[in-house]
Order: sequence, then C-alpha cells, then structure tokens
Amino acid sequence: MPDAVRASFSFLADLRCLGCGATHEVGYRLSCPCCGGLLELRFDTNALAARRPDELSGRGMWRYHWMLPARAPEHVVSMGEGGTPMLDARRLARHLGIRRLWLKFEGTNPTGTVKDRTSSTALTAAREFGFPAVGVVSTGNAGSSIASYAAWAGLRSFIFCYERGSQPKMAHMAACASDFILYRGGYDDMIGIFDRLVEELPVFDCGASRNPFKHEGKKTLAYEVAEDLGWRAPDYYVSPVGVGETFIASHRGFEELRAAGWIERTPRMIAAQSDRADPVVAALRSGGGLVGRRIGYTVAEGVAVGDPKAKGAWVLRILRENGGLAAAVSDEEVLAAQALVARAEGVWAGPTGCVSLAALIRLVREGAIDPGGEAVCVLTETGLKGEYARVEREPVAPEYASIRALVEARLAAGQ
Amino acid sequence: MPDAVRASFSFLADLRCLGCGATHEVGYRLSCPCCGGLLELRFDTNALAARRPDELSGRGMWRYHWMLPARAPEHVVSMGEGGTPMLDARRLARHLGIRRLWLKFEGTNPTGTVKDRTSSTALTAAREFGFPAVGVVSTGNAGSSIASYAAWAGLRSFIFCYERGSQPKMAHMAACASDFILYRGGYDDMIGIFDRLVEELPVFDCGASRNPFKHEGKKTLAYEVAEDLGWRAPDYYVSPVGVGETFIASHRGFEELRAAGWIERTPRMIAAQSDRADPVVAALRSGGGLVGRRIGYTVAEGVAVGDPKAKGAWVLRILRENGGLAAAVSDEEVLAAQALVARAEGVWAGPTGCVSLAALIRLVREGAIDPGGEAVCVLTETGLKGEYARVEREPVAPEYASIRALVEARLAAGQ
Repeated sequence: MPDAVRASFSFLADLRCLGCGATHEVGYRLSCPCCGGLLELRFDTNALAARRPDELSGRGMWRYHWMLPARAPEHVVSMGEGGTPMLDARRLARHLGIRRLWLKFEGTNPTGTVKDRTSSTALTAAREFGFPAVGVVSTGNAGSSIASYAAWAGLRSFIFCYERGSQPKMAHMAACASDFILYRGGYDDMIGIFDRLVEELPVFDCGASRNPFKHEGKKTLAYEVAEDLGWRAPDYYVSPVGVGETFIASHRGFEELRAAGWIERTPRMIAAQSDRADPVVAALRSGGGLVGRRIGYTVAEGVAVGDPKAKGAWVLRILRENGGLAAAVSDEEVLAAQALVARAEGVWAGPTGCVSLAALIRLVREGAIDPGGEAVCVLTETGLKGEYARVEREPVAPEYASIRALVEARLAAGQ
Repeated sequence: MPDAVRASFSFLADLRCLGCGATHEVGYRLSCPCCGGLLELRFDTNALAARRPDELSGRGMWRYHWMLPARAPEHVVSMGEGGTPMLDARRLARHLGIRRLWLKFEGTNPTGTVKDRTSSTALTAAREFGFPAVGVVSTGNAGSSIASYAAWAGLRSFIFCYERGSQPKMAHMAACASDFILYRGGYDDMIGIFDRLVEELPVFDCGASRNPFKHEGKKTLAYEVAEDLGWRAPDYYVSPVGVGETFIASHRGFEELRAAGWIERTPRMIAAQSDRADPVVAALRSGGGLVGRRIGYTVAEGVAVGDPKAKGAWVLRILRENGGLAAAVSDEEVLAAQALVARAEGVWAGPTGCVSLAALIRLVREGAIDPGGEAVCVLTETGLKGEYARVEREPVAPEYASIRALVEARLAAGQ
C-alpha cells in the first residue's frame, strides 16, 4: 500500500479531554493525564468536508474508515459488522401515530448486537498498540462480542462474567474466549478490580466506561442512518442508555457529519432507559446532576446500569444542549414493545433492543413527539440471545380434515 | 417507475421441468403439469452477459435482482438478508492444512440463518401472485424465518411445528407468526397433510421441497462468493445437504455466472451430510440411486432429512456431473468443528451450520482435497439458536491479588 493511501485512510487528529479541554497526541490512554477526565477522539472534519459521499466504498462500517481510528486498512479487525438493516416500519408507524418510523436493527451483526461495532474498533486499536490480550467485565453481550473479535484478531481474551449470566450468552463466551472467568458477585464487585488490572498489566481495556477507541465504532450508526436517508438526519433518534456509549457515539457521528457539511442538521436525541435504572432520565427531569444508585434486575439487561458516572453526565449534557428527550420504561412496556415489533413487522429483537421502541411509544402517547415527524429507533440486539418462558399450547393431531378446517376458519377471519 | 426500468429489473424467462424438460410460462406452480416433475426457474443469461459487474448496486442479495424472481423493485420483500461476511480463516486453514479457507457466515441474516434468502424470494412471489397467507412445516429455522418475513410482508403465516421443537426457536416463531400451530408427531406425519393443504387452499407453499420461487433466493450465495473473490469461483464449495436447497441453488448460481461469462469456471461442489441422515453420500458411494430411510436424532437438526426425494436426486446428479465430493459426519465431528471455529476464529455458528466445516475437515484428512486449493465453507446458521448444556466452572472470588496472579500466569503461558 503506498504511503499516500495509508495517510488518507483515517482523518484521526488527536485526543481531547471532556473535562479540562486539553488535547493530547493519539495514543492508548484511558483518561486525561492532566485532570483524569474522559477522553474523546477527534477527527479532521475539514478533511471529510473535502470528500464526497460517492467516494465511499465497501460494505459494513469500515466504509466510513476516514472517521474511524485505524492507521492502515490491513490493521482493521473486522468480522463484517455494520451495514445493518434500516427497516421502514409502516404498520408500526401507523399503530404508534407517527408519520414515519425506521428500525435500525442491530441484531444482524456477527454476534447479534451493536457491540460488534465497538469490538471492531477496540480490537483494531489493541493490535495497533501491540497488546497481547484484551479484557472486559460483562453480563453477556459485550463479553460474547469481545471474545469473538479477540479470537478473530488472534489475541488472548480475559472475559469476566458473574455466575448468574444467561446460559445462551455463557455458552457463546465459553466457546470463543481464550480465558472465560466466572466470578462470584455482581458487576460492581468486579469493575474496580478490572480497572486496576488493565492499568497494571498488558491487557487492553474493552470496557464501555473509559477507552475512547472502543467507544468509537458505534458512531457509524449515525453514518449509516444518514446515508440510508440520503444524507440527512431524521427528526428523532432514539437510543438506549446504559453506560451511554451508543447514545454518545451516535451523537458524535451526527455532529461530525454536520461539521463536514454532509448533513444539514442533527436529529433530536432521545435517551431510553429502564425505570429500574434511570439516573439520566431522573436528572433531566429534576434539572440537577446525575445521581447513581444501586439497582435491581431488569429484563433489559444491557441497560442495567445504576451509575453510569462520567459517561452518564456526558449523555445528560448532550440532552440539555440538544433539546433532547428522555423516557424510562417498565419491564412490562419493554416486553410489550418486543411482542409488538415481532408481530407487526417480523423483527425479533431482545428486550434490551426494545427499550428504545418502548420509550418512543411512551413519548408519542404523552404528546412529546410531533406526529408529523420521522423517527429512527435503534434496536440494539437480536431476540435470539434471550432465555424465554416455555411456549405452552395444546398440540393438534396431524389429521387433514381438522387442520384444514382450522386454516380455513382463520383465513376467513382475516388478519 | 418507467416501464423500461421494470422490464429490465429481472431477467426471469420461464419455468423448466427437470423431469421431462418441458418449459412453461412463469406462474405459481409446484410441479410440472406434464409429468409432475420438479420445476426450476430459468433466467436469460445472455441478458446478464450484456451487463457488467460494476453496474450492480445496493446492499444485500437484491443487488443481484436481475437474476431473482420479482417483476418490480416495489414488489421485493426484503429485511436486509444477504451481504453476509466472507471471512478469510487463516488460522483454521493452517490447522486443516489447506492453502486458503473462506467461511461464508450466514448467521448475520435477519433471523440468523441462510433461510432468510429463500424467505425473501418466497414472500416476494407470494405477494406478486396475490396470496393472503403462506405456510411451512418446520422444526425451527425455516419456521422462524418464514414467520418473520410474512409479518414484514403483511401476510398471514401458518407455521406448523412439532411439539419437541427447541425453545429458542419456538419463542421466535410464537412471537412472529400470525398462526403458530403445534402438532403431535414428527415432520413425516405432517408433510403429506401440508402438501394437500397448499394445493387446496390459498396458502403459498414455503416448504423446501417443491416451490421454485422459494428455492431461488439461496443462489445469491454463489453470486456473493464470486463477487467477494473478484468474480471467480473457489476450487471447492462446501454446502450442507438436508433437502438439498442450499446446495442446488448455489450450484445454479455458479452455473448462471459461468453461462453469462462473469466467471470462467464453477467450483467443485462438496455435499456435507450428517451420518445419521446420509442418503446422498450413500448413493454417491454405492453408485446407485437415492434410497430414503427413517432417521433418528442428529444435533445438526437442519440436515435431519432421511428422504430428500426429488431434490436429493438432483443433488446426486450435480455431484456426478460435476465430479463433486461428499462426506457424512458424526455428531461428535460436528460439535468438534463448532468448537474449533469458535475458538480459532471467533465465529459462533450452530451445529447445522458446522456440518460443512466438519465434512471439509474429514475430506482433507482423507486426502481427497488438494492442500494447495481454496475452499469456501457455508456456515448456514448462527450459534445463538441452540440449546446448550449448562456452562459449569467454579467461580473465583472477586479479589485483586488472586485475579491478577491468574491473569499474569495465563499471559506468561502465551496463547
């Protein structure tokens, strides 16, 4: 590959601290050396402005490699993530009472979740910075994804999972991870130990809370949504918020596109949380700061974060600056949204994946959404990773006359 | 859309009988009106020869709409299927002892299996021919896929599943189907009833055994493989064979591409079966005809077909004309292949999805494969749909010193 091609592969410029505003050279850092604040990657949006959409090529999220952190194409660790379906959900839109509703279905990523986008940028960086191993603490989705991508990249993976993880996710992690380690206790019992571990040993941090390289992959959601809409943003963009990675990264993507002049305006951001883990929604309502709390179980496991710390505060800031909206939904609303999108549109998404839709339904019903608007809901995971109650129904006898009568009666009844 | 664009959307020409060779006008037919034989769709490969690959556009399998059965773009029922990863499995190739091995991973389709390709052409045809409903008998993957696509298309779906279906698949079907019907007995007890039902009622046949429109979607596997290799075929193409749909359709795709001059030669086809359901492998070895038999359980549920009937005979004919290979593998070999591809490459595919890889491993070991060759293995399903044994291991205490010691020891041991 000629040097000129390498040099133009990525427009990554520097690292900027969200706390003190200091900028730092590109390198593997988990926090600002000046103040300990969160770091974000910055890209040269002027370089992007000098390019045109018809110069994009390739499938999946690395189609937007200019705005992703990799020094050269051959460094990229990709299993084909991104390029997920953007489904025009007409029946569901009518049912909700909104002009247009798009479902950005992330269940078609290699391990069935949006996390594959961040696993791709994380493992790319881990390899570029010369790490022999990566690690993460996870209840399932992140662990499965990181384990798969680490195996694909040829790196060792330390996947820490609490002993109550769901069996389908455990089977996946145990199969793909080089080192799958079960521990006693919950997420909070392990995360402090893990944070110290990645600071002291050559284990690349694949957690959601600090590493800006890991974080970055999810911003391609915004790039794909904008491209699928003909280089414009929707009126509303609904994202689940646990730690806040998907929400923040999507917002960054839209902001970059606007800065480069590829889209005219950014969408109104909507943060969707579980009412069992709603610190961002609570703070937005109260007008105060973020207050973390201990939480119990929610069926939406992927957003079960009681204290999203610095990233939660970042989400809150975006919502306030952007005139954003937020809603916290109950487990019952999440499960109702899951059943609704399955039956109305045939999309089988998991509970975590349906928090965004449940929140939109709630906000439409409350009159907070313009019915003439256009919304994009990110459904973050496939429904195939869940543990479901047994399907109970009486089997019929395989007998022609009675089965024909049953089918005829249902056909006559119509849809 | 102008008529000229409509006319050039698909090069579908006619239906041809594989039995008597008669040709018939395009229409919904499940068998030849002359002799009752199997029908296949024929496309105008001269029209394709007049086009160039750089005229292709769009994502997913409808990128090849010229060679798919739909009269106009707005008739297409698509959830974003196809465009699946083609993974260059270098570690696995070295491990096997073959120059190059590509994994065509179908687990990233909307419902996690290759069947979404055929669901897309089936529902497109069901809508074009004006059917209010579709139906299928399934142990899981096909039923989930057809239920999802029918909901997306706005058609009623009659999904017949035996009562011992796996729970993850049952939950999916129950959520997406308008009419999910459990019956007592096995596949053989229902299929005769179903075949009569779709002949007598306005229910579009989404089964794998007869409908040429349903069958057709899977040939896009060949188109994608050829395109990803720079418009050429690999030396070997390994496909599982249950009824034979994936195998036959892939072969048809390569043959069309060669007829149109888009590729120079077709690959050597390899049929992979379970040793519990190996009528094609047995017939190829014996040199005789296909003999169906009753079968027991195999972990590779999707290829558990003891009597593939006319399509099995079609597979056999292709193997004989093409100089193809075949292998039947045990459940133990399938599970070993599943574990191997998970750990070596991070790809989490289900047992049915790993039959092709297990067969390739067997054939390489037996010396039937040129070690200097290049093979493509179709992994037909995600690993997320299985029911797995509980992951049993002793959880560690969340305590820094001991966890650090554990990680250090493993890092020191290397990969």
